[in-house]
Amino acid sequence: MASGAFIWHDFADFMKPSNRIRPLVQGLHAYVPGEQPKISGLIKLNTNENAYPPSPKVLRAVKAAVDGRLRLYPNPTAQRLREGLARLHRCRPENIIVGNGSDELLSMAVRAFVEPTRSGARGRCQGFTPSYSLYPVLARQHGASWSAVPLDPDFALPSPSALRTANGWRADAALTFVTTPNAPSGRGYSVSELGALCRSLQGVVILDEAYVDFASGDAMALSKRPNVLVSRTFSKGYSLCFQRVGYFVGPRELISALDKIRDSYNVNGLGQLAALATLDDLPYYRRNVRRVIGTRRRLTADLEALGFRVQPSETNFLFAKPPRHPAETWLARLRDRKILVRWFDAPATRDYLRITVGTDAEARAVVRAAAQILK
Amino acid sequence: MASGAFIWHDFADFMKPSNRIRPLVQGLHAYVPGEQPKISGLIKLNTNENAYPPSPKVLRAVKAAVDGRLRLYPNPTAQRLREGLARLHRCRPENIIVGNGSDELLSMAVRAFVEPTRSGARGRCQGFTPSYSLYPVLARQHGASWSAVPLDPDFALPSPSALRTANGWRADAALTFVTTPNAPSGRGYSVSELGALCRSLQGVVILDEAYVDFASGDAMALSKRPNVLVSRTFSKGYSLCFQRVGYFVGPRELISALDKIRDSYNVNGLGQLAALATLDDLPYYRRNVRRVIGTRRRLTADLEALGFRVQPSETNFLFAKPPRHPAETWLARLRDRKILVRWFDAPATRDYLRITVGTDAEARAVVRAAAQILK
Repeated sequence: MASGAFIWHDFADFMKPSNRIRPLVQGLHAYVPGEQPKISGLIKLNTNENAYPPSPKVLRAVKAAVDGRLRLYPNPTAQRLREGLARLHRCRPENIIVGNGSDELLSMAVRAFVEPTRSGARGRCQGFTPSYSLYPVLARQHGASWSAVPLDPDFALPSPSALRTANGWRADAALTFVTTPNAPSGRGYSVSELGALCRSLQGVVILDEAYVDFASGDAMALSKRPNVLVSRTFSKGYSLCFQRVGYFVGPRELISALDKIRDSYNVNGLGQLAALATLDDLPYYRRNVRRVIGTRRRLTADLEALGFRVQPSETNFLFAKPPRHPAETWLARLRDRKILVRWFDAPATRDYLRITVGTDAEARAVVRAAAQILK
Repeated sequence: MASGAFIWHDFADFMKPSNRIRPLVQGLHAYVPGEQPKISGLIKLNTNENAYPPSPKVLRAVKAAVDGRLRLYPNPTAQRLREGLARLHRCRPENIIVGNGSDELLSMAVRAFVEPTRSGARGRCQGFTPSYSLYPVLARQHGASWSAVPLDPDFALPSPSALRTANGWRADAALTFVTTPNAPSGRGYSVSELGALCRSLQGVVILDEAYVDFASGDAMALSKRPNVLVSRTFSKGYSLCFQRVGYFVGPRELISALDKIRDSYNVNGLGQLAALATLDDLPYYRRNVRRVIGTRRRLTADLEALGFRVQPSETNFLFAKPPRHPAETWLARLRDRKILVRWFDAPATRDYLRITVGTDAEARAVVRAAAQILK
């Protein structure tokens, strides 16, 4: 084409819209979160929210901060919250990074530690199946590879020696995700087996302890290891889903790498304040956890009496194989009775329902509905 | 090594900590946000926050929501807020995505539209200098290339014909960032020149209108184009920095690509509520904008009377070349007088101070301090 003959007045129209989007992204399906229903009167036991509200002290602290200061940027590094968390976990603020929910930090970890390539160990994320369904989504979004080794039939971790020969498992994978206690099975793992797992891996290991507040133990001690990040959230044990606050604890080198790719003001100010006020009222939350554990025990017994096979749970949900009908049918029949639970359509999970342990009244409603469905 | 001779008990120690971090990330320097001072009594004119608080109605709406519902996840797609914004901008909710501040969306745009490679147009981000200093940070974090063309000496946009031959500019770059009105210069651009620019580009163009509420016009009409995303925030005109809410408006194809890489619950619930309540009280914010514009006019005149050369501003800040001393010296001397402004150490900016237009009282304090420094 002769120079000057080219018409520049609408160059953009020469390109199909889809050509502006990375092929990688075109091929993605968004992660599907649990339904947030608009119908009122539903008993919502599908996203593992805490049955109890934040403490009155936390609500007062947040309300008291709702004033002219909303015009100002929040502290960019969540400094006071990191100091409070450092006291709690007996480490230094430099060992902590706070995120817009722990989901943001999980995503940042993939970007900081994994090359965007499907070939080789440096581009590999790995984990177990079933576990938190976000991990493979994050790996794919980044253009990295994902492979998963099945948990044992009772959802136990495979032993390090079994992993050494497991298909798809590599000791040198860039990033390994472990949900502990496991979701969706609810099973807890001991710090010694988690320690052995971390020692068998060269790359970064994230111990995702989202549900740890409902468990009999935790693996925070492993956050001293050079390759381990422990992920925590204020969403589950601390009733602050709405506010989006999670954090990682780990070695300074890994935390500072994450900090380099963090959005400057990634954690909203009222969320920081709410989390900080939470740390000042931990006995309130320990009481709630004990109530949830009591309800969990009763709900387990009541469902077992109806013929459910319920996995032992160290979380605020139950993973239960319902009797007589397929789990998917139960999902629909419970929904007909205005009870929302979760069902995951994958080989290891499709025989089960995941049921959040709500209040005692909610648990009784589940048992009543189940008895009706079995009639 | 013979099989079995290898000791597995602490494999992790064989790797240096830095080997677990991507070389790309090791080479990054984190973006440095404007200082959030801990000293009280400082007049904070360094991060362009709004001089006035959110409306009483917004504060009431947020306070009223601080209750047990904080235990629940927020709406994952900011549905009601997107519906409200769609009414405001006369588009559909599918044309809008809400972010944890517009910074989150700018970062997502790089990941959705730009390949993580330093070679070729598909891996190229471009923009102008000076403009928002976050753009090159985001490109580098992603492993993409960044190139910038200087604005004209009066901070005007180069013409499309000048750009065609400009070093480092490509019509087929994957992503082009335009801060409009410009930061840090404060200069506004007409929708017709922005339209010509967008038409001359094949890739995605982000018109970053963070400061548009203080300008005489806007370019929202260009969000109907197939390659344009208009970025807005509740931080500046709407006094909600603390709450982290920004959004993009644009064609459904581009918005839905961004949605695929969005964190499920990326916008905290109180932020969504505050932004929605803001849309119901826009006259309050228009009054504040008029007050800021009045203060801007008076501050400009007063500084010019003292010998400052002040750029015409369509924003809530002034970009001003101070007399007698270097700008860096002014930064320090104003700080001695408890006034915090911003100075950017780059060729096009180092002769200037960027001064947020605060309240009238704050502006008078700036003028008084400047007069003392010149004595």
